[in-house]
Amino acid sequence: MISLTEIKVRGYHTDIYGHVNNARYLEFFEEDRWAQFDANVDLRKWAQKGLVFMVVNINVNYRKAVSFGERLLVSTGVEKIGNRSAVLKQEIRIKDSGELAADALVTFVLSDKTGQLLSMDDDMAEGLLKIGRSQPQ
Amino acid sequence: MISLTEIKVRGYHTDIYGHVNNARYLEFFEEDRWAQFDANVDLRKWAQKGLVFMVVNINVNYRKAVSFGERLLVSTGVEKIGNRSAVLKQEIRIKDSGELAADALVTFVLSDKTGQLLSMDDDMAEGLLKIGRSQPQ
Amino acid sequence: MISLTEIKVRGYHTDIYGHVNNARYLEFFEEDRWAQFDANVDLRKWAQKGLVFMVVNINVNYRKAVSFGERLLVSTGVEKIGNRSAVLKQEIRIKDSGELAADALVTFVLSDKTGQLLSMDDDMAEGLLKIGRSQPQ
Amino acid sequence: MISLTEIKVRGYHTDIYGHVNNARYLEFFEEDRWAQFDANVDLRKWAQKGLVFMVVNINVNYRKAVSFGERLLVSTGVEKIGNRSAVLKQEIRIKDSGELAADALVTFVLSDKTGQLLSMDDDMAEGLLKIGRSQPQ
Repeated sequence: MISLTEIKVRGYHTDIYGHVNNARYLEFFEEDRWAQFDANVDLRKWAQKGLVFMVVNINVNYRKAVSFGERLLVSTGVEKIGNRSAVLKQEIRIKDSGELAADALVTFVLSDKTGQLLSMDDDMAEGLLKIGRSQPQ
Repeated sequence: MISLTEIKVRGYHTDIYGHVNNARYLEFFEEDRWAQFDANVDLRKWAQKGLVFMVVNINVNYRKAVSFGERLLVSTGVEKIGNRSAVLKQEIRIKDSGELAADALVTFVLSDKTGQLLSMDDDMAEGLLKIGRSQPQ
Repeated sequence: MISLTEIKVRGYHTDIYGHVNNARYLEFFEEDRWAQFDANVDLRKWAQKGLVFMVVNINVNYRKAVSFGERLLVSTGVEKIGNRSAVLKQEIRIKDSGELAADALVTFVLSDKTGQLLSMDDDMAEGLLKIGRSQPQ
Repeated sequence: MISLTEIKVRGYHTDIYGHVNNARYLEFFEEDRWAQFDANVDLRKWAQKGLVFMVVNINVNYRKAVSFGERLLVSTGVEKIGNRSAVLKQEIRIKDSGELAADALVTFVLSDKTGQLLSMDDDMAEGLLKIGRSQPQ
């Protein structure tokens, strides 16, 4: 079972067009990433090892403008775990209609304190996969 | 000659890691897009025709963490003008070192009041190109 | 019974000191104001009459720095309903300890489309009071 | 001579009403505080002593809604230097008309690493006063 972040669009989320602003979407995506990592990945363990996750690319499609008062659901799934990086697929849907408002591929790497990139080992992959795989569209 | 937006990284720009947050970069990019359109494109003319620019995709690479106190330069160039969409290439560089902190391709379309997508006509292309072409890397 | 907005402090909420930034607190307060008005006041009725609420003063005390990972509870109560303005008292408490992180008095007025200030009539006062009175400290 | 921060109101600054949002004003005020401290106060010296400025109260009046495209000037002056705290007076004016859009009193204290509040000594007072006194209205 997958938990989702629910957000109701408030006045302060929207911009001059009455729509949620591009930058704000990234906060909505980030909110659900933190929620998923909180729930599924033992961040403290990685932090104690001095490991840091760094987002290196976000590729976001803005598909449908969302307006004041709409309820959004943000979801996160694992799209791909590579040797040196991993990709999350995130979606923001309008709760009532199920319509896709935005989706994003978020690529991150794992580095140690010195900035050295690390391999995604089995332990990390196992942790990430607790978040669940992304759904094929 | 190309104008650039200069931003000094303040405490409220940075997040828990002491770095500028992912979402905030999109505001920096947006700031320079507005500045370029202000200076080069007759937005009032397009607005009077009921035309609206809509960003449909942002593909952003985070290349180097930037920290409190650093000065950034944001630049914008036209990467491609297609039939139905146009792509801007934007960069954020650290002023002192010239290092690339982030770059993004920003794709937008032009729609009328009913949401109907319009072709990028010659008039629009001419306006956009006043911003200048993006530089090959 | 009073509903509260619960917010978990994420990395993107905090600033260079690892603390929630001053401006972000205002968003937390605004989130709970919208939630309370949503639940208790028939905003559509006021909007149809062309009436708009405008915040004219916020007086906020920052009492305790809150850090990444802490859970906050935001509450809103009616402090005072005057002839021409009303005052809400809002608090942000750390969920686990109950400690007060910040509190604010938020004064707003009611205006019509022309910007003319209106009296808070009995109907409005009744609606507001469904939010509940603020607690004496 | 007093330097001012100039800000042009962009689409991403405004909210559903087409006006600059309450929380965003605090970022504008903060921007000018950093600029003034940068220019006038040797922050490095204080940081090396392990001293931290903490804002403990902001009392902000929203006097006039500002809209997309308007140019704002943010100013900061010293209102009062007490024994244990200091107060800055900040204003945001519309550049073209000179009208006051918002003003704020911002109270801060000085603490050491242990959270102990310190007196504002002569050295600090001298530094602060380089920012300039606030103007009587």
